[in-house]
Amino acid sequence: MSSNSQTQTRKLVYYIAVSADGFIADIERNTEDFSMTAQYIPDYMRSLQDYDTVLMGKYTYEAGYKYGIKPGEPSPIYGHMMQYIFSQSMEQFEHEQLKVVRDDPSEFARSLKSEQGSAIYLCGGGKLAAYLLEHGLIDELILKVNPIVFGTGIPLFDGSIKSISLDLLDTKVYRDGNIFLRYQIA
Amino acid sequence: MSSNSQTQTRKLVYYIAVSADGFIADIERNTEDFSMTAQYIPDYMRSLQDYDTVLMGKYTYEAGYKYGIKPGEPSPIYGHMMQYIFSQSMEQFEHEQLKVVRDDPSEFARSLKSEQGSAIYLCGGGKLAAYLLEHGLIDELILKVNPIVFGTGIPLFDGSIKSISLDLLDTKVYRDGNIFLRYQIA
Repeated sequence: MSSNSQTQTRKLVYYIAVSADGFIADIERNTEDFSMTAQYIPDYMRSLQDYDTVLMGKYTYEAGYKYGIKPGEPSPIYGHMMQYIFSQSMEQFEHEQLKVVRDDPSEFARSLKSEQGSAIYLCGGGKLAAYLLEHGLIDELILKVNPIVFGTGIPLFDGSIKSISLDLLDTKVYRDGNIFLRYQIA
Repeated sequence: MSSNSQTQTRKLVYYIAVSADGFIADIERNTEDFSMTAQYIPDYMRSLQDYDTVLMGKYTYEAGYKYGIKPGEPSPIYGHMMQYIFSQSMEQFEHEQLKVVRDDPSEFARSLKSEQGSAIYLCGGGKLAAYLLEHGLIDELILKVNPIVFGTGIPLFDGSIKSISLDLLDTKVYRDGNIFLRYQIA
């Protein structure tokens, strides 16, 4: 069949922790109340091996400073991935594994998806996710729903106004009250 | 033990459909994209028997007009419950099962909870839920997470700024992609 000769595009997966009311951070961009509990960590670390590339916004990268990452250093948790930060205001870093991207995120992501490689990890933030969602570039949504309510905060898709149907692919309930939900974006 | 002589307060349960990104309605207050599927309906109808009283805001009551409820009629789905609408602007209805409440919702809910009876159902909307949450009056949160993303809309706790921890009590995954989550508010 002709499918063998077709270009297979790489999956772009938005995988992120949320509160039970759908916020990826509280209103001051804090995520410390999201627990990385002992039950969840092995699954998460294993899942990161599915990706060779990670995309993030400026605030998501800078959130790492709280955990000891210095400006210009790649995030060690994504140590095996090529790391791209979308920002118009950040300086370019001199690191072969970490690049600041000034191009339009949708064009850059579309180009990456057409290249050879593993799945691409979108780790935040909400505005970048909204932009890529509205451009039809996100293939899967993986939520780790934390047992907490923020009331207000940074939305999962910050600024998106497009209603999108999902297909539930997978779930896992952790004893600590975290819930893992994997959706395909229809 | 002395617990036998203590007053048992009735549980107040906020049970509501949400999008995967935490909205109880889209930005135009529509909820038509939430599916009441054949798999879910029997569980939902059975669960309503746990309650003898339902609390709602004005918009939540008026949303019933789209489904044929006439102003002043109680909602038939809550047919066995005493129905209270919190509103300063609505006229009082002449119906023994449906009352407009102008009192402060927290004082009214606190008083109801101290009376004899079954659990109390809070069916929305977001602002009433936020107010009762911030006053420490909601005991359980039950979410039916729909396989849809709204991007923006009416938040689960509209206007709340209080971070609240939850304990996950129960989950159920439906074949249609809906997920039922029951939390105790800590």
